[in-house]
Amino acid sequence: MSKKITLEQKVLSRNDILAAELRKLFNEEQVAVMNMVSSPGSGKTSLLEKTLGSLSQNLSIGVIEGDIQTDNDAVRIAKTGVPVYQIQTGGACHLEAEMIRRALVNFDLKSTDLLIIENVGNLVCPSAFDLGEGLRVAVISTTEGDDKPLKYPAMFRSADVMVINKMDLLPYTDFDVQKVTRNAMSLNPEIQILKTSCRTGEGLNEWANFVKNFAHLIVSGV
Amino acid sequence: MSKKITLEQKVLSRNDILAAELRKLFNEEQVAVMNMVSSPGSGKTSLLEKTLGSLSQNLSIGVIEGDIQTDNDAVRIAKTGVPVYQIQTGGACHLEAEMIRRALVNFDLKSTDLLIIENVGNLVCPSAFDLGEGLRVAVISTTEGDDKPLKYPAMFRSADVMVINKMDLLPYTDFDVQKVTRNAMSLNPEIQILKTSCRTGEGLNEWANFVKNFAHLIVSGV
Repeated sequence: MSKKITLEQKVLSRNDILAAELRKLFNEEQVAVMNMVSSPGSGKTSLLEKTLGSLSQNLSIGVIEGDIQTDNDAVRIAKTGVPVYQIQTGGACHLEAEMIRRALVNFDLKSTDLLIIENVGNLVCPSAFDLGEGLRVAVISTTEGDDKPLKYPAMFRSADVMVINKMDLLPYTDFDVQKVTRNAMSLNPEIQILKTSCRTGEGLNEWANFVKNFAHLIVSGV
Repeated sequence: MSKKITLEQKVLSRNDILAAELRKLFNEEQVAVMNMVSSPGSGKTSLLEKTLGSLSQNLSIGVIEGDIQTDNDAVRIAKTGVPVYQIQTGGACHLEAEMIRRALVNFDLKSTDLLIIENVGNLVCPSAFDLGEGLRVAVISTTEGDDKPLKYPAMFRSADVMVINKMDLLPYTDFDVQKVTRNAMSLNPEIQILKTSCRTGEGLNEWANFVKNFAHLIVSGV
């Protein structure tokens, strides 16, 4: 096992070095980069579908989709008119900085304000892989249970924001918004919390404004 | 990367050897073993909570809970009166045969008919790790989207059964039961499909009967 741990550490440390290089590049090019993580089916793609139209009025955006198989998500995003590139990991359970580096040839960073990376749906492995992002967004849906931050602590400890999605389904579940908030903040007192529903539109303006503010902070170089 | 692949292959092959040994042991001891896999929050623990009472009238059952952190699920199962052992993987994104081997000291296999393993909530990594089980059950909830079998093919290809859970939420989602069935069967034509709701009780008898039949086949040595 010690051999395995050493190799994993090497892979992680190689990823960290490359992520730091990407972060430097993104800063130089003034590109705001957001890494969206969640369980499968929490609604990351729907959140983007619903808000890319409004976001792209003020920002030049690119999207990188990460999936094990299929280009379903890229097809959905392409319909919004925003440039999108699909990474198919072919089995790998997370995106790595090297995959992002290779995907960047598909974007003109000089004219991009905001690069959104939608990670593989997995609450475990993506938490350990820095992609050079400036903002990590963990999406959780109200049908997943309010204990998830405690059960998947690395993800919620490393996230800047927790988006509680599918608020429209709240009345039909035992999900307790206060409890999930407490659970997330017990791990990460600085975490910001937004509540959204892609069906009713609840919170979508707040989410779009939040993303705009993040991008403007980076693009204006504040 | 080739070094990494070789090491991963070694880990998998070591796991396969150990899983084969476990399978032999389970056959000798006539223990039916079921490995439950799903996304976080699909309702694996709730399915067990709702049906262990009925199942344990006819069967002597043990449960192994796999989680990265917390013993929340073991606490929930213990309330049903069924013996349960919690494996905390401490970061690992899946259970491995070696973890199961070590956990077995907590059970008297000679007097156990059915051992239920609830895997870490992760639709990716657990698919590659045989635990010596006789039945692999993939649980998907109606809120996760009907495209999930295509996006996480290894899991649905390796499963014997797909349980579509949270059927009570179906009217509030775009989930198409026929479509998810088609998607799963396109990967795995032999997969059996059950539909359940832990809130309304829909399909719970069928689920319990299915598990009983599986256990009786093994225990009676047919």
